[in-house]
Amino acid sequence: MKKYILVLISFLIVCFETFAQESLWEGQKIISPEVHSDNTVTFRLEAPKAESVQVKGDFLPDKINSGIADMTKSKNGLWEFTTEPLDPEFYSYSFLVDGLKINDPNNVFLNRDITSLHNVFLIGGGRADLYKVNNVPHGSVIRCWYSSPTLQMTRRLVIYTPPSYESSNADYPVLYLLHGMGGDEETWTERGRMAQIMDNLIAQGKAKPMIVVMPNGNASQEAAPGESSLGFYKPETKLPKIDAKTVFSDMNEAKKLLPLLKESNQIIKSFPDIVNFIDQRFRTKKEKSGRAIAGLSMGGFQSMYISKEYPDMFDYVGLFSAAAFAPNVNVPPFDNVTEKLKVQFDKKPALYWMAVGKEDFLYKMNENYRRKLDENGYKYTYFETGEGHIWKNWRIYLTEFVPLLF
Amino acid sequence: MKKYILVLISFLIVCFETFAQESLWEGQKIISPEVHSDNTVTFRLEAPKAESVQVKGDFLPDKINSGIADMTKSKNGLWEFTTEPLDPEFYSYSFLVDGLKINDPNNVFLNRDITSLHNVFLIGGGRADLYKVNNVPHGSVIRCWYSSPTLQMTRRLVIYTPPSYESSNADYPVLYLLHGMGGDEETWTERGRMAQIMDNLIAQGKAKPMIVVMPNGNASQEAAPGESSLGFYKPETKLPKIDAKTVFSDMNEAKKLLPLLKESNQIIKSFPDIVNFIDQRFRTKKEKSGRAIAGLSMGGFQSMYISKEYPDMFDYVGLFSAAAFAPNVNVPPFDNVTEKLKVQFDKKPALYWMAVGKEDFLYKMNENYRRKLDENGYKYTYFETGEGHIWKNWRIYLTEFVPLLF
Repeated sequence: MKKYILVLISFLIVCFETFAQESLWEGQKIISPEVHSDNTVTFRLEAPKAESVQVKGDFLPDKINSGIADMTKSKNGLWEFTTEPLDPEFYSYSFLVDGLKINDPNNVFLNRDITSLHNVFLIGGGRADLYKVNNVPHGSVIRCWYSSPTLQMTRRLVIYTPPSYESSNADYPVLYLLHGMGGDEETWTERGRMAQIMDNLIAQGKAKPMIVVMPNGNASQEAAPGESSLGFYKPETKLPKIDAKTVFSDMNEAKKLLPLLKESNQIIKSFPDIVNFIDQRFRTKKEKSGRAIAGLSMGGFQSMYISKEYPDMFDYVGLFSAAAFAPNVNVPPFDNVTEKLKVQFDKKPALYWMAVGKEDFLYKMNENYRRKLDENGYKYTYFETGEGHIWKNWRIYLTEFVPLLF
Repeated sequence: MKKYILVLISFLIVCFETFAQESLWEGQKIISPEVHSDNTVTFRLEAPKAESVQVKGDFLPDKINSGIADMTKSKNGLWEFTTEPLDPEFYSYSFLVDGLKINDPNNVFLNRDITSLHNVFLIGGGRADLYKVNNVPHGSVIRCWYSSPTLQMTRRLVIYTPPSYESSNADYPVLYLLHGMGGDEETWTERGRMAQIMDNLIAQGKAKPMIVVMPNGNASQEAAPGESSLGFYKPETKLPKIDAKTVFSDMNEAKKLLPLLKESNQIIKSFPDIVNFIDQRFRTKKEKSGRAIAGLSMGGFQSMYISKEYPDMFDYVGLFSAAAFAPNVNVPPFDNVTEKLKVQFDKKPALYWMAVGKEDFLYKMNENYRRKLDENGYKYTYFETGEGHIWKNWRIYLTEFVPLLF
C-alpha cells in the first residue's frame, strides 16, 4: 500500500493538471433528469437570470399546456419540475429558457430528430426493459459503405450482427429495416433502440438470431448528415415549402413534391444492390425464406413496393404506420399495382404484417389498404396500438414483428 | 410527368402531415456556424430576451477575454459574432446566454468531452483535409464486445477495418489506440477523427491498410456512458476532490488517488485479453512486427507499460503527450522498470515514437524520460509541436505516427 502511495505522489502531478485541461471538473453538480424510485422525474436547470424556464417533453400530456410545463425557480436560481409517475418508456425533452429552446446542459445523452436535438432518458420496466442495455450477450453494430451500381454512388449503412454470428459458421437470415422521411441510416439504432431490442429478444429466446440491415432511404444521400463528403451541413427537410391550400388545385405547387417520389422510386429500383452487397459480405441465407423487409412511414411505403417489385426476394413484410397508398398510374415501379400485388400474394408470403396507431393520421389509409387486401382474400396480420405517428409505436412494432420472423 | 403529379396529390396528404409530426419543419432558418470563403466564421443565435450572448471556442485566442467573445445583438434579437480568418482545424465551441452555457441550437453536430457537450465544425485545407470525409474508399467502424477473463467482465470496444479488408484474404497489422483519462472507446472516433484520418492516409498511399482497435481504458467500465447496463447516468470524473495544497504532505489525501493507478494496472494486466480477442475475430498478423500500440496522456502511460510488460507483443510504440513517468517501486507492473525497459530495447523495437507539445504541462516529464532513454542509448523518434495537452495535437500525432507503421 505504501509503495502505491509513493507512485501516487508523482501520478498526482500528472492527474491534477490533466483534469483541468480535459474539463473533468467542468459541469455543475446538478443531476437532471433524476428518475425517482416511483418513476416521477425531476428536471433541473441553473439559470439565475432567466425569467421563465419550461420543460417540453413527450411525457407531458397535452392538458399541461401542449406538452410544455413551467419549471419553478427556487433559491440560487435553480429551476425545477417534477413529473407525475411515468410509464416505462424511452422519452425525450428540451428546455425553453425565456422562449429559447436549449438542451439540458446536465444531460449528455441526445437523439437527433432531423434538424434538432433532444435529450433522452429511459424509464425501465415492462416492454421498455427491451430498450435497455442489459447484461446479455451483445451483437455488433457496423457502419460501412456499399457501392450502388444503380445509383452510381457509394453509400453508408448500419448493420447489426447477432451475438452468435462470430462464433458460428451458420448462415443467418436478414431483416432489412427502413426509416421514415427525414431519417437516415442512424435513425433505427439511435431513436429505435434497435441493437438493444435485438440483443434482448435474442437473449430471451423470443427472436431468432438474425442480421439487421439499415440502409439510408434517401436516394440522393451518400450518408447521414455529418457522415458524408458534404461535411457538417445543417440538415434540412428536402420538402419544399408548399401552400397546403392550393396544392390540390395548383399543379405547380404539386410538382414541387416530385423529387420526393422520385427518390423513393430510386430506392426501390436500387434495392437489389443492397441485398447483393449484404449477401456477399456476410454469411446470409440467400433465399426468400431467409429475408424480411420492414419500415416505418415512408420506409413502410418503400417496403410495400420493394416486396411487391421483387416478389421472390422477401418472405416477411412489415408495414409500420406505412404510407400505404397505391396510386393507379403507370410509372414504374408504381405501375400495375393490382397485378403485382396479386403476384406477390399468389406466392403466399410467410408473413405480411401491418401495424398502425388509432390516432395515426395514416390510420384511414391503412384501413383502406387492409380492405383491399381483404377483398382479394390476401392474408395479412394486423396489429393496432393507441396513439399516432410516433417513435414509441415504432419501437413497439419492432418488438412485436421480430419474434414472428424466420 | 402528369402521371407523377397524380401520384403526388395522394402522396402530399401523407407527406404534409408526416412532416408536422416528425419535426421536419422545426428549427429556425438560421445558419450557425457559417464558414465563409475566407475562413472567417459567423455564429448566430436568436435570443431576443437575452442581455448577453457570448461564444466560447477553442479558435479564440486568449487575448479575446480568455477564449470568450461577446456577440452583438442586431434587430430581431439575432446575436452574431464573426471570427478572424481561422486556420484549417476541427474546432469546438459553446454559447453563453446570460452566463448559462448552452449548445448552438442550429448546429446538430456535437462532441462529448467527458461531462459536457460542445458543438463542432471543421475548416478544411492542409492537414485538416485528413479530418474530412472525402470521396475515397471508406473502412468500416465496428462497435462490439469482448470478454475479458482477467477482469471478469464483458467490455465494449471500437474497431476500424480498412477498405480493402473485406475484398482480400490477407492478414492485416493492428494498431491498438488508447484514449486519455476521462475518455472511453468512443473518444478516438469522435474527437480524434480516427476513421477519416485512416481512410484518407490509406487512400493517399501514406499509410498501410491496418486494423485499428480502440478499447475502453478504464478497467472498471463496461462501456462508454450510455452504452452499458448503467444506463444514461451522468458521466463524472472518477478523481475524488483533492486538496492540491496538502496532497504532498498528507498521505490520506494521496490515498484517494489509489483507484486510478489500480485501474491502469488492471488495463495493463488484462491487455492480452484484447489482443487475443482481436486475433481470433479478425484476420490479423499475429507476430510482433504486425502490432503497434499508441495512446495519449493516460493512454500513453498505459502504452509505455503495456509495451514494456509484454516486450514480444508490440514492435511499434507511440507515446502522445504521455504521462511518461517511471516510479521506482516494486508493485507489478510498475516493478523493475529499468530492467524491463532494458529487455524491451534489447529486442530493438521497430519504432519507439514520442511526441509532445512545447506548452504541455507534461513537457518536462517527457524531457526527463527522453534523457533516460538517451543515457541508455535506447533509440526513439521524437516529434515536437507547439501548444499543449489538446486534441489538436493528438490528431496531428496520429497523422504523423500512422505512416511510420508496418
